[in-house]
Amino acid sequence: MGLRNRLHEIIYEADTPMGKLFDLVLFFLILLSVVVVMLESVGHIDAKYHDLFLKIEWGITLFFTLEYILRIVSVKKPFRYIFSFYGLIDLLATIPLYLSYIFAGSQVLLAVRAFRLLRVFRILKLVKFLGEASQLSKALRASRAKILVFVYTVLILSVIMGTIMYQIEGEESGFTSIPRSIYWTIVTLTTVGYGDIAPQTTLGQFIATIIMVMGYGIIAVPTGIVTVEYAKHSGEKKTSSESYVHTNTQACPNCSVENHRDGAKYCYNCGDLL
Amino acid sequence: MGLRNRLHEIIYEADTPMGKLFDLVLFFLILLSVVVVMLESVGHIDAKYHDLFLKIEWGITLFFTLEYILRIVSVKKPFRYIFSFYGLIDLLATIPLYLSYIFAGSQVLLAVRAFRLLRVFRILKLVKFLGEASQLSKALRASRAKILVFVYTVLILSVIMGTIMYQIEGEESGFTSIPRSIYWTIVTLTTVGYGDIAPQTTLGQFIATIIMVMGYGIIAVPTGIVTVEYAKHSGEKKTSSESYVHTNTQACPNCSVENHRDGAKYCYNCGDLL
Amino acid sequence: MGLRNRLHEIIYEADTPMGKLFDLVLFFLILLSVVVVMLESVGHIDAKYHDLFLKIEWGITLFFTLEYILRIVSVKKPFRYIFSFYGLIDLLATIPLYLSYIFAGSQVLLAVRAFRLLRVFRILKLVKFLGEASQLSKALRASRAKILVFVYTVLILSVIMGTIMYQIEGEESGFTSIPRSIYWTIVTLTTVGYGDIAPQTTLGQFIATIIMVMGYGIIAVPTGIVTVEYAKHSGEKKTSSESYVHTNTQACPNCSVENHRDGAKYCYNCGDLL
Amino acid sequence: MGLRNRLHEIIYEADTPMGKLFDLVLFFLILLSVVVVMLESVGHIDAKYHDLFLKIEWGITLFFTLEYILRIVSVKKPFRYIFSFYGLIDLLATIPLYLSYIFAGSQVLLAVRAFRLLRVFRILKLVKFLGEASQLSKALRASRAKILVFVYTVLILSVIMGTIMYQIEGEESGFTSIPRSIYWTIVTLTTVGYGDIAPQTTLGQFIATIIMVMGYGIIAVPTGIVTVEYAKHSGEKKTSSESYVHTNTQACPNCSVENHRDGAKYCYNCGDLL
Repeated sequence: MGLRNRLHEIIYEADTPMGKLFDLVLFFLILLSVVVVMLESVGHIDAKYHDLFLKIEWGITLFFTLEYILRIVSVKKPFRYIFSFYGLIDLLATIPLYLSYIFAGSQVLLAVRAFRLLRVFRILKLVKFLGEASQLSKALRASRAKILVFVYTVLILSVIMGTIMYQIEGEESGFTSIPRSIYWTIVTLTTVGYGDIAPQTTLGQFIATIIMVMGYGIIAVPTGIVTVEYAKHSGEKKTSSESYVHTNTQACPNCSVENHRDGAKYCYNCGDLL
Repeated sequence: MGLRNRLHEIIYEADTPMGKLFDLVLFFLILLSVVVVMLESVGHIDAKYHDLFLKIEWGITLFFTLEYILRIVSVKKPFRYIFSFYGLIDLLATIPLYLSYIFAGSQVLLAVRAFRLLRVFRILKLVKFLGEASQLSKALRASRAKILVFVYTVLILSVIMGTIMYQIEGEESGFTSIPRSIYWTIVTLTTVGYGDIAPQTTLGQFIATIIMVMGYGIIAVPTGIVTVEYAKHSGEKKTSSESYVHTNTQACPNCSVENHRDGAKYCYNCGDLL
Repeated sequence: MGLRNRLHEIIYEADTPMGKLFDLVLFFLILLSVVVVMLESVGHIDAKYHDLFLKIEWGITLFFTLEYILRIVSVKKPFRYIFSFYGLIDLLATIPLYLSYIFAGSQVLLAVRAFRLLRVFRILKLVKFLGEASQLSKALRASRAKILVFVYTVLILSVIMGTIMYQIEGEESGFTSIPRSIYWTIVTLTTVGYGDIAPQTTLGQFIATIIMVMGYGIIAVPTGIVTVEYAKHSGEKKTSSESYVHTNTQACPNCSVENHRDGAKYCYNCGDLL
Repeated sequence: MGLRNRLHEIIYEADTPMGKLFDLVLFFLILLSVVVVMLESVGHIDAKYHDLFLKIEWGITLFFTLEYILRIVSVKKPFRYIFSFYGLIDLLATIPLYLSYIFAGSQVLLAVRAFRLLRVFRILKLVKFLGEASQLSKALRASRAKILVFVYTVLILSVIMGTIMYQIEGEESGFTSIPRSIYWTIVTLTTVGYGDIAPQTTLGQFIATIIMVMGYGIIAVPTGIVTVEYAKHSGEKKTSSESYVHTNTQACPNCSVENHRDGAKYCYNCGDLL
């Protein structure tokens, strides 16, 4: 079974007690790293606990570094992992502290850490959450083209209405440029409505009213699309039970493909021994 | 039939004239207690009627105390009631006035009184409202897992976008810390849009625009889920009429279980005589 | 056929050329009356055209008075009309100008004029709009009980959260009383978000965040209800074509009931000759 | 095949490599023209690059002029194109720069350029987007009457509530006239909520609360309509595959009708050779 296989089982899978423990510890550390980044940004808390935060940061960074190396070591084809979505996030979440000694602005990368929170879906795969999520994402993927058409139409509408409002309201009302005017149009169309910019002229308020009613009604379109698509995929669950064979959390040590059937001995993708 | 049984019938059930009257009086007093707490908070009204309010408060508190004691006395297993959801709310709604002589900050408990307004659903059970409510709550319960996945995704998104906006906008625009920046992101994503914090830089406004369009579109997801689930449970009504046998408002004096069939003599849960 | 029958045909029906013309003139005058009331409220326009507006007001009021009298005269049972929904609106829309010579504050009644705009639905009944509207209102009536349960739950939630926010934020942040705090909660829960009151403390912002996400998600409930109910009633259209016999705009001169079949000679309600 | 036919193939169709190239170049230039108009409105960028922008403007205008002439020349019935929707937009997008030498305010026409972005749907017709869009627009057209009834009801509601709020709040709270008060009502009803005008009196806030809850619930109506209609048209796709014969991007050189079957030799509308 070899050391690499054992490592692979612990790090990539969550079916054994050790695998579950590893995933939970990892999730806790990811959460801690995000919380520390948040608290560091609050002036009066950072002033008090700066040294503690730095120590925690270093501890987490060392753990992440070790984890990253082990992840590379324990798969047969490390490059697949390195250039995968999760692989890149893991790398970007590990390096900010190292980079901060080289570049000044590398703090930006700390935001990447939050992406690691998505790993919780892997851990929760243990229970039924993933089936739900995959139904949802199927519905969203099926309506992708329609939603793109919708978003594109909304954008053109925003550009047109933004340009018109810029010429009606002008600089006195805060519509100082067309991009800013488009920003206002989107704020209004999505019914967010900050109020930092608001039309002052009667004509401007009249057109604003039209934009609002349009925004209020247009929301029916994506809702309708997602509901109908989701209704289709939700129905599938009953007719074709095939997509609901019990899967486990194993990932193929060769090609990293997931969602193997329970009790499967060989990867359904590359034929390698699991 | 015993005194306890009679009390039980009046306090817990709403099938007899006395039971109905008790429920109506109770609901009126709960409403009065909530209104008085509200009016006490309005400076100029409280200044005028403070003594009257205190008298009403004492009257209601004494009634609630008596009612709480009778509720305990009239069930066979009082601990079930005491530690039930309604039991805890009844207790917390009764004690604030007593506690205010011991602790200063116990006013917080007054908010609990509003929870007692939920009792109206018990009174309205007389008519057809509960069937509706239970259909709704069934649909919501069925889509719980999906909605949790959705809320979790929204939260991660808020953390990521909040961290990015904090680093783009900085303290000058009001994004003074990451938690505050996340607060702004949620205000924007849910299309609330207070406008107390608003992006000032062009890049910040551009990313804000993306968050708004996302928030505007994402709402389609819970709507789709609830609509589809509710459509399923709404259909049930016709196929399996079994869930629509006439139920009454009796609660078992032994185990407090509700929704007994009309004319049932024994509790379907513990077999005790109703 | 008698004068009363002729008047009835012109005033209450829209099948004859004269009836159509009357409805169009009436709708134009109602629109004019609403526009004049609006323009009178704009200071600089009123200053310029005050005399013209007063003349138009008098002309419209005289026409409305005449129309109201004719409506009473031309039905067999005038009290049914007088105390019907439209009858009361017609009266209230006619009298403000007369009353303004007696009471100072009777301007409030001018808002009633806008209700008369609802008559357009009668005129449009000519075409297919009413079928659509009745389908919609059927769906809304069918989901009335569920929507009431929903609104009641939202109100209790607002009272609870408003009371909590009042005790957290206090007067410094603008939460000066519980009613005002509840007002803020509803502003937030419905995702309106004026920003005239906004939480300042970290705990307050955290709870505000929860209210927002709840408000953002809760909207799925009425949407789901209306969609499912409307889907049911929309399906009916095909199965039972009976509800789509051609109806005309005649109203029974005796009992004022509407929606008679095309070609019907007797009122389906009271048997009177149409 | 003639020069005119070749030009027609390149300009109006996207099946040949030259046709595709032309469409892509055109789309890029339209995008560039919109971006330049935007950047010109930003003071500090325009100050720096004013001469460059003017040169680009002239280049694009000359290209648009040439394209417009060729479009007219290459169809058999030019007046059909000139007075079509796209024909008018093409003209209005071409002339602003010429007009700016004659009239001062002709900058307004620059907003029309954004409409040309709608051409992207023609280019994307190559792929499957158009099928999606036509399904959407079918659903929207089918629910047009219902949505009109809905919008009209919302407008009457806004007029009524606006007039009432004007009389309750008065000028001190910013409700300076009825039109402005109606503007506020729509801002609130659509849940935009700028906060530039907000009720100050307790009664005004109470009514505002009702408007908000109404606006929050009313959105369920268009959503329900669109979802149900879209569900119907989405189902069609499977039952009647006839509407999904492969179409190409050819437009008839005689009558400009589009969506011809793949391999069709004659226009299905006028019988002219394609």
